[in-house]
Amino acid sequence: MTIKIRSLDSTSAGFKQQLDTLLAFEASTDDAIESAVATILQDVKARGDAAVLEYTNRFDRVRATGMAAFDIGQDELQAALESLPHAQREALQVAADRIRVFHERQKQELKGFSYTEPDGTVLGQRITPLDRVGIYVPGGKAAYPSSVLMNAIPAKVAGVAEIIMVVPTPDGVKNQMVLAAAAIAGVTRVITIGGAQAVGALAYGTDTIAAVDKIVGPGNAYVAAAKRRVFGTVGIDMIAGPSEILVLCDGTTDPDWVAMDLFSQAEHDELAQAIMLCPDAGYIAQVEASIHKLLPTMPRQDTIRTSMTDRGALVKVRDMEEACEIANAIAAEHLEISAENPQQWADKIRHAGAMFLGRFSSESLGDYCCGPNHVLPTSRTARFSSPLGVYDFQKRSSILCVSEAGAQTLGKVAAELAYGEGLQAHARSAELRLKPQP
Amino acid sequence: MTIKIRSLDSTSAGFKQQLDTLLAFEASTDDAIESAVATILQDVKARGDAAVLEYTNRFDRVRATGMAAFDIGQDELQAALESLPHAQREALQVAADRIRVFHERQKQELKGFSYTEPDGTVLGQRITPLDRVGIYVPGGKAAYPSSVLMNAIPAKVAGVAEIIMVVPTPDGVKNQMVLAAAAIAGVTRVITIGGAQAVGALAYGTDTIAAVDKIVGPGNAYVAAAKRRVFGTVGIDMIAGPSEILVLCDGTTDPDWVAMDLFSQAEHDELAQAIMLCPDAGYIAQVEASIHKLLPTMPRQDTIRTSMTDRGALVKVRDMEEACEIANAIAAEHLEISAENPQQWADKIRHAGAMFLGRFSSESLGDYCCGPNHVLPTSRTARFSSPLGVYDFQKRSSILCVSEAGAQTLGKVAAELAYGEGLQAHARSAELRLKPQP
Repeated sequence: MTIKIRSLDSTSAGFKQQLDTLLAFEASTDDAIESAVATILQDVKARGDAAVLEYTNRFDRVRATGMAAFDIGQDELQAALESLPHAQREALQVAADRIRVFHERQKQELKGFSYTEPDGTVLGQRITPLDRVGIYVPGGKAAYPSSVLMNAIPAKVAGVAEIIMVVPTPDGVKNQMVLAAAAIAGVTRVITIGGAQAVGALAYGTDTIAAVDKIVGPGNAYVAAAKRRVFGTVGIDMIAGPSEILVLCDGTTDPDWVAMDLFSQAEHDELAQAIMLCPDAGYIAQVEASIHKLLPTMPRQDTIRTSMTDRGALVKVRDMEEACEIANAIAAEHLEISAENPQQWADKIRHAGAMFLGRFSSESLGDYCCGPNHVLPTSRTARFSSPLGVYDFQKRSSILCVSEAGAQTLGKVAAELAYGEGLQAHARSAELRLKPQP
Repeated sequence: MTIKIRSLDSTSAGFKQQLDTLLAFEASTDDAIESAVATILQDVKARGDAAVLEYTNRFDRVRATGMAAFDIGQDELQAALESLPHAQREALQVAADRIRVFHERQKQELKGFSYTEPDGTVLGQRITPLDRVGIYVPGGKAAYPSSVLMNAIPAKVAGVAEIIMVVPTPDGVKNQMVLAAAAIAGVTRVITIGGAQAVGALAYGTDTIAAVDKIVGPGNAYVAAAKRRVFGTVGIDMIAGPSEILVLCDGTTDPDWVAMDLFSQAEHDELAQAIMLCPDAGYIAQVEASIHKLLPTMPRQDTIRTSMTDRGALVKVRDMEEACEIANAIAAEHLEISAENPQQWADKIRHAGAMFLGRFSSESLGDYCCGPNHVLPTSRTARFSSPLGVYDFQKRSSILCVSEAGAQTLGKVAAELAYGEGLQAHARSAELRLKPQP
């Protein structure tokens, strides 16, 4: 079965409209899911463990008689790690170490500050970690140990005291690589529950599960709906849309490499988006030929074919400058600049979740082990949001320590403005600190 | 009319339950509002300016014939500034300057980083400002110039190129102090529209209003519902709950000062929350006496009375250590530590939006002119979120530039993990970069 990939040309009249249509993605909200999730959350809030136990037994087809059955002890996590083939265990450890090093840099950058004014007033900002965090890890097919590392390690580096991981085990089947990743990442507690009931338990707390301050990690539509609903009671990370790659190529990279990079995004799921921008029509044809050649060799070729046919594109642009402009409009989750001297183009990019520079920087290296996080803003949200990081597990508090002298000058300013806004108690509160005029 | 304030004692049996009940606040969602807002947003998305014009004429009781009528030029902003009484203008300028200085510190802290590994691989994080931001400013009674400064200046300091402020002018009435604040803060454009229609215009863009990347600023229930709905298309700040103050007092501050600090929160609105924790029963009685004495002098006494009766409390605690523990559970928006040597207690606080240390640091000084932001996390969200800051108008991009040598070692690790996750295109993409073994 062949594959037909959309070809676009930036000089054609309808290009902007075509691009907008290609990029358009609206997460559908399903009323049935919304209502099921609302019921489950309400029930977990009201009945706690009893509700979590019932839903878990029903949805995951298990027969636990109490919540204790869902806990996986540190011994079992360690045993899972030891059960892995040597190369796999080694790879997980290398990845974890590199992720930790990168995220330690993030922590170093954010230390807070404090400064003292001439009158003795001290102003500043303090950075503290969250107390307790929940990490949602999907069960079944999409159970990715790399996600465990990418979600748990930043929390650990931030100094979060308790990291509670929930991972459903449908039919009681555990993923040893996921448990091994939890051991390596230093997760505090692993509970084999999932779905909206797990999100509810983490957000509201139960007799056996302490309420957390934030819930992160990917999940299905039920989990996403539940996270949206508990937002405010706890923090959440972004609700991720389909994954995307945008490759800017000057035509100097082996076309097989670019084709495979596009596949690596497309294989994720049928809604994933893989787009290449290139000024060289001849090279675009070579990449297309590589796609046709390599597709039959891919185990996940059906997913790749659907995703590339429905949402992929090979775009001929005027030049690399125009490619950068289009890249800024797309604000891709993953942006590969596969070109000679990539920095010249990187300097023109304002919006991207992660930028992979030069032809050796394949997205897949970043997905697993370079060090930067693979949880990145999707669906053009890189215009205003950031990769998951240590900063997502920290928060700031302002510090204001006004001296008696400071209260004299600041008090008059505050009172003037407070009266202007009609807030007299604000004004009086400032004025009470003023010394009587001599 | 007297005021009856709740007295609690941390040693009494039901204290924890009483405190939980006191703190419980659930933002009610109103189906009528939700459905009206959904309709307006849909209409603005579909019909653009025509819809914005119709809704504005209807809801704000004005008779504009085109969108141009809603623009307030820089000349008019400057004229508003010049029309203010000298002292008021001076106070606004001092406040703006101090806010700018504090937020410049925030910007200095976040510069991004980059490091090169021995094999030449470069990893880093780049910080860039958002392109375009919308600031919502309420019209009518709750139009606060200080909010204009607190929302616009961090965006300006971050380097946001375009700051678009929307402010409804019901019946055509403009607030000169708000316009003056926009002039001082360096707002790019002011448009006199409001409500869900303004939020929709900013999020989706119209022919005359460019779509923004993020919308910040307070608003009524319609505005809050609209912001929630456009979240994802654009970024938003937190949806704020009622404002709160928690005063930890060791009994050494003039009780009038503490009473007035509680009032300054309570006067905001009837749902505002003002709580004092103190180990000294005699002192609590003094504060209560001050409350009775001072309340009749307050122009907003009705609001204060309702808010303090319904949601306020004077809490006798065992000691200041226990006060700090309770403060961590409350995670207040504003925390005053009105005590001798306040730093000893501040060191025990993990969660607070802003901490006001020492008896001269009244919250009102911070509300207007100390420099730190007055947009702070409410309703216990200080457990996981931060004051509004420059960082809310910046985002990070990860940078990965893998060397050829780096691709050899990282490629093997990535391929091992990718095969483990069943993502073969990821694995092959890494492997294609491996040099053939000699």
